[in-house]
Amino acid sequence: MVQEEVKKAIRDIPDFPKPGIVFKDITPIMQDAELSKAIVQHLKSIYKDQKVEAIAGIESRGFLFGYPLAMELGIPFILIRKKGKLPHKTISYDYDLEYGSATIEMHVDAVSKGQRVLVHDDLLATGGSAEAAAKLIQKGGAEIIGFDFLVELEFLKGADKLRSLSDNIRNLVAY
Amino acid sequence: MVQEEVKKAIRDIPDFPKPGIVFKDITPIMQDAELSKAIVQHLKSIYKDQKVEAIAGIESRGFLFGYPLAMELGIPFILIRKKGKLPHKTISYDYDLEYGSATIEMHVDAVSKGQRVLVHDDLLATGGSAEAAAKLIQKGGAEIIGFDFLVELEFLKGADKLRSLSDNIRNLVAY
Repeated sequence: MVQEEVKKAIRDIPDFPKPGIVFKDITPIMQDAELSKAIVQHLKSIYKDQKVEAIAGIESRGFLFGYPLAMELGIPFILIRKKGKLPHKTISYDYDLEYGSATIEMHVDAVSKGQRVLVHDDLLATGGSAEAAAKLIQKGGAEIIGFDFLVELEFLKGADKLRSLSDNIRNLVAY
Repeated sequence: MVQEEVKKAIRDIPDFPKPGIVFKDITPIMQDAELSKAIVQHLKSIYKDQKVEAIAGIESRGFLFGYPLAMELGIPFILIRKKGKLPHKTISYDYDLEYGSATIEMHVDAVSKGQRVLVHDDLLATGGSAEAAAKLIQKGGAEIIGFDFLVELEFLKGADKLRSLSDNIRNLVAY
């Protein structure tokens, strides 16, 4: 099963980004092309019948599987980036972080009205950035049809924050 | 030809990131899954006989085609990231920017001694970040066997900066 291989590949990094936090490092997956392809094919098999019309990937680790998945599904890939990175006209969304705030952006023409968009990122922790991405996409007139994550840290209850936007929330592996 | 389609898709954004600069925006390519796949296949056809043993992608737009290409070639993908983003032990490299300096990192175990690495990014401008990525990889004991870019701004002569590292420098489209 691809999930078991992913769990084997992910490594724990204690005290990153700060003391007391155990970070789930997905980069060993990138060392393994066969596993990487198996993940993309697994995700394709899940989403191919969900009438997904675009994948939105959150910078920058959300680009890693988001774009290959969009290619495989034959649908557009939407780049959600930090403020000031996208060159064309943008729509932006401000949200609160643990300390301070952040702004994310996408191009105004990245989504169309009523388009069925799946939000993808590598990690679901507290859900703040996925929620912000979904609200940004809604602001652009599109519809959120689900959230996809490689890894979910269930004890942080990020899914609770997202459920009002869509209850179609998936992870490949959870801790 | 995929090059012509890429040229058609790329749009000019005047005065980004600052007045007088015309930015080449590649994000319309991400809207077109067929073109995206054709680019990956085109790159695969170029590199499949070059004994490339790993692709190094520069954060974050270098992840977009770098990782799918590595998957297609069946080889590891090395993430080159800004300082402080990678959780495991890293090797870092400092380099000068137009104003100030920057530091990039990769995981210590991302490359192996003598490994034949291709550096990939979306854009070759002055060549500063590609040069830094190559030197970082060399510092890790691997070998640079070439540089690959989606877009090259030839008038900025970035290739001149890279040639001492490898003269195998390719672009898909040039301006």
